[in-house]
Amino acid sequence: MESKKVYNFAAGPSKVPEEVNTQFVNFIYFQLPAQQVLRQAQQELLNYNNEGASVMELSHRSKTFEKVIETAEKDLRDILSIPDNYKVLFMQGGGTGQFAAIPLNLCPGLKDCSADYLVTGAWSSKAAKEAEKYIKVNRVLPKSDKHVTIADKSEWKLNANASYLYYCENETIHGVEWHHAPEPLPGVPLVADMSSNFLTKPIDVSKYGIIFAGAQKNVGIAGLVVVIVREDLLGKEAGFCPSVLSYKTMADNKSLYNTPNCFAVYITGLCLKWIKANGGLRGMQERCNKKSDLIYSVIDSSNGFFYSPVDKRYRSKVNLPFRIGGANGDDELEKEFLSESAKRGMIQLKGHRSVGGLRASLFNAITIEETQFLANFMKEFHNLKQK
Amino acid sequence: MESKKVYNFAAGPSKVPEEVNTQFVNFIYFQLPAQQVLRQAQQELLNYNNEGASVMELSHRSKTFEKVIETAEKDLRDILSIPDNYKVLFMQGGGTGQFAAIPLNLCPGLKDCSADYLVTGAWSSKAAKEAEKYIKVNRVLPKSDKHVTIADKSEWKLNANASYLYYCENETIHGVEWHHAPEPLPGVPLVADMSSNFLTKPIDVSKYGIIFAGAQKNVGIAGLVVVIVREDLLGKEAGFCPSVLSYKTMADNKSLYNTPNCFAVYITGLCLKWIKANGGLRGMQERCNKKSDLIYSVIDSSNGFFYSPVDKRYRSKVNLPFRIGGANGDDELEKEFLSESAKRGMIQLKGHRSVGGLRASLFNAITIEETQFLANFMKEFHNLKQK
Repeated sequence: MESKKVYNFAAGPSKVPEEVNTQFVNFIYFQLPAQQVLRQAQQELLNYNNEGASVMELSHRSKTFEKVIETAEKDLRDILSIPDNYKVLFMQGGGTGQFAAIPLNLCPGLKDCSADYLVTGAWSSKAAKEAEKYIKVNRVLPKSDKHVTIADKSEWKLNANASYLYYCENETIHGVEWHHAPEPLPGVPLVADMSSNFLTKPIDVSKYGIIFAGAQKNVGIAGLVVVIVREDLLGKEAGFCPSVLSYKTMADNKSLYNTPNCFAVYITGLCLKWIKANGGLRGMQERCNKKSDLIYSVIDSSNGFFYSPVDKRYRSKVNLPFRIGGANGDDELEKEFLSESAKRGMIQLKGHRSVGGLRASLFNAITIEETQFLANFMKEFHNLKQK
Repeated sequence: MESKKVYNFAAGPSKVPEEVNTQFVNFIYFQLPAQQVLRQAQQELLNYNNEGASVMELSHRSKTFEKVIETAEKDLRDILSIPDNYKVLFMQGGGTGQFAAIPLNLCPGLKDCSADYLVTGAWSSKAAKEAEKYIKVNRVLPKSDKHVTIADKSEWKLNANASYLYYCENETIHGVEWHHAPEPLPGVPLVADMSSNFLTKPIDVSKYGIIFAGAQKNVGIAGLVVVIVREDLLGKEAGFCPSVLSYKTMADNKSLYNTPNCFAVYITGLCLKWIKANGGLRGMQERCNKKSDLIYSVIDSSNGFFYSPVDKRYRSKVNLPFRIGGANGDDELEKEFLSESAKRGMIQLKGHRSVGGLRASLFNAITIEETQFLANFMKEFHNLKQK
């Protein structure tokens, strides 16, 4: 049976990079490994490394799995040039688990401690609320419901006693992205949620205390979160920190304190090989810039027919929310756009229910050709409605 | 290339039930879905349900994944006859995560609360230690280092004010299994870790407050833990409970508060179909009894050449530790047995490093034929050494 062609601009689970040139543009659900990664996983699913067993059946204490997890760590260190004084952890519980893990690991005194949070959208807001279970949270930016920009530094209220400064590099729902990391006060570690733009551009890891990212957007599948933590921040945890969320416990046991999500580690390993083979972070950044330019240029040359709500200085290159028919959107036009694009196999273009409108998610796996297909359709739709 | 034949008696990640009759006995690493489950996963890996996307790429908010998770829950409810006043949760963080989740969810007052722990081996001991971070732990049984039996009820010290009574149904390392659930004092909820014997026999769910089980031994792959919780126990959680470990948060959101381990839920769904097609829990129990009888009868008729350290009343039918050459084991004989069995493709027969000796793990996926192959080799080895 021939497989249906689907083009997936999803912000949640998403898509696999496509290597093979094809006349079909393939936007599929999760932003997953390359098509070649999927094919390799399929090919060796019943017999990994000629061991007579599936990779799903490998003991996490076996030499074979040890090599899988060590190679994944080594490739990530190469790709990001991670300094030697940082540990790489493969954990469970996703970004939401990290929202609790951060204060539990960095604030031994819990309620006696405070941390600074830069709230720029739904995810940093969730993180701040979870942290409030444990510590005092200082919201650095003026309160905003819209989350379409980042207030000028003159309006920030940083706290010199903060245990850390927290921010979300890319707000998946609101489409607000930091293109330069915020600068913390001296001695305050910087903590970044990079879940949705991880490995889409080079970063200087040495600026950070902690970086974490769910694997399922740019470097694998759901159920695995990658944590990069500076060694001097280990061992400060509160007595109430569950072992599965303890960075020190995980670092001391090379992420094998308990059984990890072995299969997801394996898939991440394949994705990292794909990133290396495709120009590393410079290659990913080039793709990312080209793709977002394609869509934003259609929006910006549409005389307001397409509307991007986000301040141009902070527009996300990964999650692009937009409206059709002006700033508040025209319900009928947006519905028609969704239904017509779906007919062409482009799915998951609906914006998050909390903000409405549309959204194109251009994670690592979406190709330039696939993005061009969407840009062309946007122009076609605009022309049609102008007549 | 023909795949190597391997017979895996691992206690950690383990093996896939084999449907097809073959002259090779196949003990592979993880105790995974049936061979037919692996084949189905392989076949549809690039195009699930004719959606044009891999199951790994499905959005956890999509209708398609909703059906995957709802069907898995329904099949589990059918298999275990789970009463309506129980919730089924699919969580991350494994059994080790649950060691913290149990006190965090059941003890709102934390250090003011206490719970009773029946420590019968390494895993219940770990659970008790993790719980001590949060609450007072009362060890019900007389202290023992050996863990080869369960003390008579007359020696138990139960506490009427306990928030719950905790036990581990099957100790994977020590091979001690409860064949009848312990009876708690009136009003004290019973909490069971069933990670290694889950779905190997019928149980009466209504006796329990909470049952949890890592999926990777009898019903899937690592990175997923199944939790069955009585509704009246929801919402008692401590303020310090991380959202990812909160039963109420997970129940209110049908296990979709954050992105779950989607792929593992899918594999568990396939395993549950396999269990249903193979006689349900009666079928699994029959397999389990036959398999453990095969090995124990070789041990018991060996005049002490093979030695099982565990009290016959509490011998595990799933994890069978044994020694060769008497109660303390003969190092040379045990080494030779391991090397000779490995030559025949039987791997992972070494006992856990903390107890030494040998161990055969007979999870759901190991067939009677595979177990017979091991039993025959044990007899052959014994005969050889008698000459």
